[in-house]
Amino acid sequence: MGEHYLDNAATTPVLPEAAEKARQLMVEGFGNPSSLHTRGFLAHKELERAREVIAGKLGGEPSEIVFTGGGTEGNNLAVLGAALARKRLGDKIVTTAIEHDSVLKAMGELECQGFRVAYVKPDARGCVPLEALEGEIDEKTVLVSVMAVNNETGARLPIEGLSRAIKRKKVPALLHTDAVQAFGKLAFSPKKWGADLCTVSAHKIHGPKGVGALYVKKGTHLLPRVFGGGQERGLRPGTESLPLIGAFAEAAQRLPKPAQALEAVGALRERLLAGLRELPGVAVHSPEEGLPYIVNFSAGRVRAETMLHFLSQKGVYVSSGSACGKAKPSHVLEAMGLEKEQIASALRVSFSRFSTEEDVMALLEALKEGLMTLQRE
Amino acid sequence: MGEHYLDNAATTPVLPEAAEKARQLMVEGFGNPSSLHTRGFLAHKELERAREVIAGKLGGEPSEIVFTGGGTEGNNLAVLGAALARKRLGDKIVTTAIEHDSVLKAMGELECQGFRVAYVKPDARGCVPLEALEGEIDEKTVLVSVMAVNNETGARLPIEGLSRAIKRKKVPALLHTDAVQAFGKLAFSPKKWGADLCTVSAHKIHGPKGVGALYVKKGTHLLPRVFGGGQERGLRPGTESLPLIGAFAEAAQRLPKPAQALEAVGALRERLLAGLRELPGVAVHSPEEGLPYIVNFSAGRVRAETMLHFLSQKGVYVSSGSACGKAKPSHVLEAMGLEKEQIASALRVSFSRFSTEEDVMALLEALKEGLMTLQRE
Repeated sequence: MGEHYLDNAATTPVLPEAAEKARQLMVEGFGNPSSLHTRGFLAHKELERAREVIAGKLGGEPSEIVFTGGGTEGNNLAVLGAALARKRLGDKIVTTAIEHDSVLKAMGELECQGFRVAYVKPDARGCVPLEALEGEIDEKTVLVSVMAVNNETGARLPIEGLSRAIKRKKVPALLHTDAVQAFGKLAFSPKKWGADLCTVSAHKIHGPKGVGALYVKKGTHLLPRVFGGGQERGLRPGTESLPLIGAFAEAAQRLPKPAQALEAVGALRERLLAGLRELPGVAVHSPEEGLPYIVNFSAGRVRAETMLHFLSQKGVYVSSGSACGKAKPSHVLEAMGLEKEQIASALRVSFSRFSTEEDVMALLEALKEGLMTLQRE
Repeated sequence: MGEHYLDNAATTPVLPEAAEKARQLMVEGFGNPSSLHTRGFLAHKELERAREVIAGKLGGEPSEIVFTGGGTEGNNLAVLGAALARKRLGDKIVTTAIEHDSVLKAMGELECQGFRVAYVKPDARGCVPLEALEGEIDEKTVLVSVMAVNNETGARLPIEGLSRAIKRKKVPALLHTDAVQAFGKLAFSPKKWGADLCTVSAHKIHGPKGVGALYVKKGTHLLPRVFGGGQERGLRPGTESLPLIGAFAEAAQRLPKPAQALEAVGALRERLLAGLRELPGVAVHSPEEGLPYIVNFSAGRVRAETMLHFLSQKGVYVSSGSACGKAKPSHVLEAMGLEKEQIASALRVSFSRFSTEEDVMALLEALKEGLMTLQRE
């Protein structure tokens, strides 16, 4: 039985070259970048080389890159670090109801600390209108945190427009974007978007789990969340995980131009949507103009977990919403106003640049069989 | 030129088997442990297997192990998480002046938040007397955080005695120990010591940088420092770095019985001390009853950085105090009351179980040459 891994928004297989780089940095290039001997210098050099690669991919300066332990940590540092550093300037924060848990839960913590947070809702298509976000931004707003691409639907959010709105309104807000699902898939740079803070993660771009980066625009003041040695300019102390950072850079370096993969992945989505249209009782929840890497849909009245299990047995791996959420109902689809039954049956298919038409055909085949088998029961 | 790596308290080379495990988990076992398909289940199984290994090595239950991003993160979660969770019970914290920066800086943050912190000083030999620590523990004390083995001198601290003192005094204090330098080198378990929280790190035991564990005794309530998905029982959310966790377990599994290595390393220390006694102007700063893995000494009046550089050119790698501190004077030696000149020239030699007599002889030879060459200048 072949394997058809279509859960790339949850995590991706690491490129062999990136994994080999990690292995090599563990065994051979094992120095502590802070050590004042040759092994330390070599490690430090590797670290800074990796920083240059990530900075290049994000269109920023190496000094604007802080390596983190992943997307969750990056989002926490950005949201909590920015809001708490700007507490004296205001107490309002603007975000959306469809952010990743690492942003939403950090917002909850800020509410406990006295901040007022506006969670702007998406429309029925999963898109968050710029006007609705703009309307919440006022002179007390110290932070706007909006994801670039939603991890459950692929919806794109209006980061550039938000940046313009903040400038036009002359408010003291920093702009953070969780770009974990956009990095490597969409041609962008935080600088061009006008974002002060931008979170990316390695394991969504065929790098390893446990590492990511936060772009921090020059001159942006953040309060650290972790205290210790001075690593990462004091913003993320602790011995740097050079093996993972090196592997992250290796994976980033091997990213094709986003437009190149986008076309092929777009064709896969079209193929999938065409197939879904032929099945009974299928409703697609991803907006048409969303990133084609993610397709969210409900298949009949079969509970997602049941269908996931069925598909898994056929070697087809998809998910129900975010992997982090496990079995709880999707807050994203809830915010879109979907009915309970649709939410309970929603599946997320997520492509990588290595996905193939065979993967899509296998999914459609298994899905068809699943609907026949499971709905009959 | 051979290489003589004697900076194992800063970091260690990763065992080839552990590095290979990481590589394999990146490329083949790449599932997200939270995913509800076969790849997810397999990853989850690997994660729990690793948890069992680390729990076994610490003499605890798997449910008492929280995987972290390393020692710094573990210390932060323990110190900040415990103190903030117990704020209502009291405002005093007892620690020592010779803790790692990740504990000391976290204490600084707690002072900003209204806690009173007693930093108990070591004696001239680098040992912190139990009585001095006990004397600071009162009914307002919510946390006692004392390292098991000092990272600069190898001094052992009285964790068991502290646990007894807390129980005898019937105060609401939790006991945390930073056991990063003790793990794998000393036979201990937090349970036997009576510690509620215990930090360990992978890259000091020939595992990779970027992963560690915090032992959290059953029933101990901590506030998380990071917010997001529910991973690690909500105490450390974010997709688990399975490659590093698996490699950590692999390295832990291959640890010999501490007593076994201790004898051999003890002999290396004796060899080193005997050699140092023959050199002019050498003063040893490590206490005799300290862990033999670490030997701190001053060599003549040569600045440590200058000597480090000289030794590095000869292929002998040692350090000046903690790697994290880089060029600033050691707060540990300062707290011991050493003179400025001695602190400025202090070197740290740190062994691993793979260190050899040849390493020691090469160090002594290079040191002798260094003293002759550099003192003459």
